[in-house]
Amino acid sequence: MSECIFCKIINGEIPSDKVYEDEKVIAFNDINPQAPVHILVIPKEHISSIKEIDENNGDIIKHIHLVINRIAKEKGLDEKGFRIVNNCGEEGGQTVGHLHYHLLGGRQLQWPPG
Amino acid sequence: MSECIFCKIINGEIPSDKVYEDEKVIAFNDINPQAPVHILVIPKEHISSIKEIDENNGDIIKHIHLVINRIAKEKGLDEKGFRIVNNCGEEGGQTVGHLHYHLLGGRQLQWPPG
Repeated sequence: MSECIFCKIINGEIPSDKVYEDEKVIAFNDINPQAPVHILVIPKEHISSIKEIDENNGDIIKHIHLVINRIAKEKGLDEKGFRIVNNCGEEGGQTVGHLHYHLLGGRQLQWPPG
Repeated sequence: MSECIFCKIINGEIPSDKVYEDEKVIAFNDINPQAPVHILVIPKEHISSIKEIDENNGDIIKHIHLVINRIAKEKGLDEKGFRIVNNCGEEGGQTVGHLHYHLLGGRQLQWPPG
């Protein structure tokens, strides 16, 4: 049994407000949204962070971005715009040790990005 | 002649503080850094934003992230962490119409990410 909270979301042990799922990834609304649209896209495979991505397992990064584009369009963000954020490690602000991309939109995102 | 400022950086018309280059991408220091390390990684091919990424041209996204990991390690960010940001469109804060990923590190990144 994994202790990873995102693995528990993937296997249904913990509920989530899911917006997309396929064989490789799921996407769900962030429980602490920072914008009108704030969705996490995560691989079903447990990968602890972007640091673990290499030539062998990196195809998932392309796929995650294709899914982000699809969701952005479905949520009506493609015209006005959106931001994609990946946090790695403590100074990056990563709070769950399972690779995840934030999709934020529906308001003007500010600069700096944190 | 392209009017794109990043295409001009790629072809050497405009100088940049380059930190990495290969046949597909270049990386250079942001001229208005928001963190001690703030590097842009961009494809040499002119792609206007992440919205233009699809199944056919998406391998570059994997490659950009492998390059980010490599640079993060070289800059000593891999232990403490870093943040990767992609802005798309006006509300995303995209200011140059050529796909680019921001790599930020060297300080505690805050939340929300803009």
